[in-house]
Amino acid sequence: MFFASDNTSGAPPEVMQALLRANEGFARSYGGDDIMARVTTQVRTLFDAPDAQVHLVATGTAANALALAALTDPWGAVFCHRHAHIAEDECGAPEFYTNGAKLVLIDGAHGRITPAALTEALATTGASGVHGVQRGCLSLTNVTEAGTVYTPAEIAALTGIAKSHGLPCHLDGARFANALVATGATPAELTWRAGIDVLSFGGTKNGLLGVEAVVLFDPAKSWELELRRKRGGHLFSKHRYLSAQMEAYLQDGLWMRLAALANAMGQRLAQGIAGLNHAALTHPSQANMIFANWEPGGHARLQAAGAVYYDLRPLPDGRETARMVASWNTTEDHVDRFLAALKS
Amino acid sequence: MFFASDNTSGAPPEVMQALLRANEGFARSYGGDDIMARVTTQVRTLFDAPDAQVHLVATGTAANALALAALTDPWGAVFCHRHAHIAEDECGAPEFYTNGAKLVLIDGAHGRITPAALTEALATTGASGVHGVQRGCLSLTNVTEAGTVYTPAEIAALTGIAKSHGLPCHLDGARFANALVATGATPAELTWRAGIDVLSFGGTKNGLLGVEAVVLFDPAKSWELELRRKRGGHLFSKHRYLSAQMEAYLQDGLWMRLAALANAMGQRLAQGIAGLNHAALTHPSQANMIFANWEPGGHARLQAAGAVYYDLRPLPDGRETARMVASWNTTEDHVDRFLAALKS
Amino acid sequence: MFFASDNTSGAPPEVMQALLRANEGFARSYGGDDIMARVTTQVRTLFDAPDAQVHLVATGTAANALALAALTDPWGAVFCHRHAHIAEDECGAPEFYTNGAKLVLIDGAHGRITPAALTEALATTGASGVHGVQRGCLSLTNVTEAGTVYTPAEIAALTGIAKSHGLPCHLDGARFANALVATGATPAELTWRAGIDVLSFGGTKNGLLGVEAVVLFDPAKSWELELRRKRGGHLFSKHRYLSAQMEAYLQDGLWMRLAALANAMGQRLAQGIAGLNHAALTHPSQANMIFANWEPGGHARLQAAGAVYYDLRPLPDGRETARMVASWNTTEDHVDRFLAALKS
Amino acid sequence: MFFASDNTSGAPPEVMQALLRANEGFARSYGGDDIMARVTTQVRTLFDAPDAQVHLVATGTAANALALAALTDPWGAVFCHRHAHIAEDECGAPEFYTNGAKLVLIDGAHGRITPAALTEALATTGASGVHGVQRGCLSLTNVTEAGTVYTPAEIAALTGIAKSHGLPCHLDGARFANALVATGATPAELTWRAGIDVLSFGGTKNGLLGVEAVVLFDPAKSWELELRRKRGGHLFSKHRYLSAQMEAYLQDGLWMRLAALANAMGQRLAQGIAGLNHAALTHPSQANMIFANWEPGGHARLQAAGAVYYDLRPLPDGRETARMVASWNTTEDHVDRFLAALKS
Repeated sequence: MFFASDNTSGAPPEVMQALLRANEGFARSYGGDDIMARVTTQVRTLFDAPDAQVHLVATGTAANALALAALTDPWGAVFCHRHAHIAEDECGAPEFYTNGAKLVLIDGAHGRITPAALTEALATTGASGVHGVQRGCLSLTNVTEAGTVYTPAEIAALTGIAKSHGLPCHLDGARFANALVATGATPAELTWRAGIDVLSFGGTKNGLLGVEAVVLFDPAKSWELELRRKRGGHLFSKHRYLSAQMEAYLQDGLWMRLAALANAMGQRLAQGIAGLNHAALTHPSQANMIFANWEPGGHARLQAAGAVYYDLRPLPDGRETARMVASWNTTEDHVDRFLAALKS
Repeated sequence: MFFASDNTSGAPPEVMQALLRANEGFARSYGGDDIMARVTTQVRTLFDAPDAQVHLVATGTAANALALAALTDPWGAVFCHRHAHIAEDECGAPEFYTNGAKLVLIDGAHGRITPAALTEALATTGASGVHGVQRGCLSLTNVTEAGTVYTPAEIAALTGIAKSHGLPCHLDGARFANALVATGATPAELTWRAGIDVLSFGGTKNGLLGVEAVVLFDPAKSWELELRRKRGGHLFSKHRYLSAQMEAYLQDGLWMRLAALANAMGQRLAQGIAGLNHAALTHPSQANMIFANWEPGGHARLQAAGAVYYDLRPLPDGRETARMVASWNTTEDHVDRFLAALKS
Repeated sequence: MFFASDNTSGAPPEVMQALLRANEGFARSYGGDDIMARVTTQVRTLFDAPDAQVHLVATGTAANALALAALTDPWGAVFCHRHAHIAEDECGAPEFYTNGAKLVLIDGAHGRITPAALTEALATTGASGVHGVQRGCLSLTNVTEAGTVYTPAEIAALTGIAKSHGLPCHLDGARFANALVATGATPAELTWRAGIDVLSFGGTKNGLLGVEAVVLFDPAKSWELELRRKRGGHLFSKHRYLSAQMEAYLQDGLWMRLAALANAMGQRLAQGIAGLNHAALTHPSQANMIFANWEPGGHARLQAAGAVYYDLRPLPDGRETARMVASWNTTEDHVDRFLAALKS
Repeated sequence: MFFASDNTSGAPPEVMQALLRANEGFARSYGGDDIMARVTTQVRTLFDAPDAQVHLVATGTAANALALAALTDPWGAVFCHRHAHIAEDECGAPEFYTNGAKLVLIDGAHGRITPAALTEALATTGASGVHGVQRGCLSLTNVTEAGTVYTPAEIAALTGIAKSHGLPCHLDGARFANALVATGATPAELTWRAGIDVLSFGGTKNGLLGVEAVVLFDPAKSWELELRRKRGGHLFSKHRYLSAQMEAYLQDGLWMRLAALANAMGQRLAQGIAGLNHAALTHPSQANMIFANWEPGGHARLQAAGAVYYDLRPLPDGRETARMVASWNTTEDHVDRFLAALKS
């Protein structure tokens, strides 16, 4: 019953076998390996984006921070949700990599930014000439930090507002595959066709050991990103091991199968919780991340039963709250035992 | 005949098997995995340093830059050799991570800093009060970028000078195991007993997929380093895969066996070159990295024979120059064919 | 009728004469001038703080950014009001000087932070271990950006909360003299006796050409501040001209007389507006900065009459809003003509 | 006998009177003052550069650091002389403002870079792809830190080499007026016609209280520089006092008259020293800064006579060395008494 995070699960056999294969012989270092050339082709094909540039790194924080640094001047503002990973969970990496840009935090229910809230934020930031920071970029997250998703149309509405101010748009896709499964959209529909310029394309939470791709749909910033990656210490000498993971991930739809498994278990858990009298979902559940609250006592029963998850701050009325994340190797048995423990 | 770099070779079976074992089941993320606890114990034992703190990252640039940032203020000077990796091969990562510290480059034959040169550099930097940068730290490299090594006594002489000015000392040990093999010293003798405060302890060039340890012999800066690692995007969520590599590396002396293999092949190559009439070693060869020069025509013969290595700038007199690096899986056959091609 | 800002007015004769006197002969540069030694004594005496260290700069942004950088790590959070000058009016200078610290914006009526709001901000920032930024420092502003003031007891309540988390406290005193006049407190009462560790002690808005002092009540960070000042380009070679302004400012109570003049005119304006039927004060007016709103048409009448001030965003109900600032050389005639134009 | 630096002397009456005039009444802040508009016109006319953009700051370090930041990426190299002010005397301000660019130090006799040395530096920096820093810009100094000057042709030779690599060129003109006097060139000839893109145009050392202009001959970076100036805390609210100094400085050739006075006294001193048996010039003396060396005992005699100057590191053979700087208000009597004391 391990629901702490999708980053506590391992990698599927296909990925491990790819690593073993990649280990044979000598290979050119620093991204010059043959596998990487194939990965670039895979990504371009999957996203229907023949000019896209792909840069692999090992952590989501690196992918996000490098992407934002390529899009934002040091005196720029990054518009994002108040609870975005870049705002709360990266120890200021975006500020570090951008050399001091400012994150403008936008409130919004269930982890989502509304067009009205974005419009208001843009009206009050960057309107004081040289005295305030300038408008820099928009950063969205899909799946959001609340487990909800944006549809292509919702993303396009937000990026349209940003672009009316000339701002480029970044998508934190740490759980991008889960968002695709949840929305039924294609990779292109959920990114560049909806106005996204740079994607942090997650692999780690969905079954890799540690690989994320920064995908630049406009290749103009590719060399700058290359330099920032090196300067950040994120260019791997034995790069083939990153390439191999990503190649296996994208081969024959593995990545989408893994996300479908995770989402299915997430939805099973969500529906189970929604069906309990004393428990409720905190946010609408659309993918593999479930936020719930329940009457006091739930934590004690669950922990006694061996469930592992995040217990969050209680509600003002005393109800307990929690975050559970399903991953590709979560089983129905895990879910059902969790529900049984919560119910009893 | 792949002598381009030790980072073009793969990992030995012990490491790959460790990865497969680590892949089983769920594990706590972000360094909370059980394997990491064992790695810390291993390092402390090997270095006879019960208080040492160990932080794993995936690249040598990250290890160096984080270490230097923990030791140096933004207005500090890092004293290092003119051709140090931190000076020439990291695209300014030390400047980025230190928020703008200045590398003071010290000339020295064969990649080594002499006490006299260090003394002179310290006399002319940090002596102008608030107007110039302040003295920050000393950074040495062992094996040096010229393939030579420092003995414990040589390191102690340099760190002693630095410490007389109150400076902490960093060792870039990307090829630390090769230096141990070459000098016959123990890990403690070549580090903290010789005045080193922080070690970049390399694994990647010596057989890992991508793991380096920042070893703090004084644990006082450990939490700061933890924050800098996270903020730099270098804290792995699925950290167990880093831990597993390092555990296997240090288990039963694997790391020293790998380095011994690399050094032996390096020395075989060096002796072979030294025995040729028209070729010579550019730097004394003490480990696995060989610098040589020869009469024009050598490159053409070697490349025709399929040898891969770095050809460097020719000497003023027209002699060709080159760098060859042996790794743990370089074979005698590789070496001998290289020599044959160079000779003929 | 110039109410745009107190920085649009000039300097009183005492200050200009001091500049002329300071111009005689040669003087040691970079803060070694004799006048600066006297200024330090003046400040220590006025603040009853014999160990305080005083560093002069020429702009308030420099004073604030340097002070915050001395108090906050790059991975730290600066807790401040949403509309603080450091948040809205310095183009990210705090982020630049701190190397990327994060400003945590606290809402609060009339420019003031309440103890409850600070407590809540501290509960939600710095509580996630290595993943989020750490708690760095508290920064208050007095006179606030809304023209209100904090009493010594109000400041002490806030700094007490901050210090219970180990945080140092900064006060942006760009209008510190105006706050003293408004509260009747002594300099010590409004700063270190209320828990303030570092003060940005403004002079420019209150009659100097361009001088602010960073006052460190704890001298431990003085050398660091000195280095940061130089590195930021804020150490004047001909420093005597800064010293001379500050000496004249503090001599014989000039600074308090200037602030009393400004506050008196501010209060005259505020009372006049409060007495009008169609106009109202937006924030309680306690010093020399007045925020007001009125029925549509006010802007047109005022501007026709030649009044200069900031017109702000209208209220949702259409009422016009404005900021007026009185300075030491605002006259009763200016105020009365403004009120007449607004009324008619 | 005050020869410590030209920054220890005061301002001429014309400048002080301009300050008094500027102090009248209210003025728009932050560079919107009427005087600044006139200053821009003055500079454009003097430099025959109708598109030039002019930004005033108060220190030379600020001018240089802002200029370099506008020209150089964080991963760029600034090519400069080993003893340039930006390298030795700004406590790392260029590294701070550029967010970590690297200064590549070029040796050269008498403070000057030769075309051969620049060519070599360009060949060895920026040639290793993503691994090393990239070539960023060239920064020259005129008058150099050794008191010598570059002619327009010498500058053009160096900028030509830089531009053949696509690099923009900066001139640190802290003593620009002295260089004009020494070379007889026009402002245009010594800057943009010789390939200079950005000039730090000094006023402080030549008679102002504290004003330097960043002159952008290509206005494309003007808004960026404006933002950097604000973010660095270098945008003055009461900007009129900077404008007034600069206007007076450029009015009726005051600046050139001041520099001519300083140079004349510098040359009188240099010729006097050159005529002594036991003393010699260390560098050819061309403007107002004199480097000399003499037999032991000179310091003692000079200091006994009350001379103030910099005594530098003795030569290996024991000869004493010194730097003397003449300023606009140095008198013949000062010079002659200095020479008498040195001689006796």
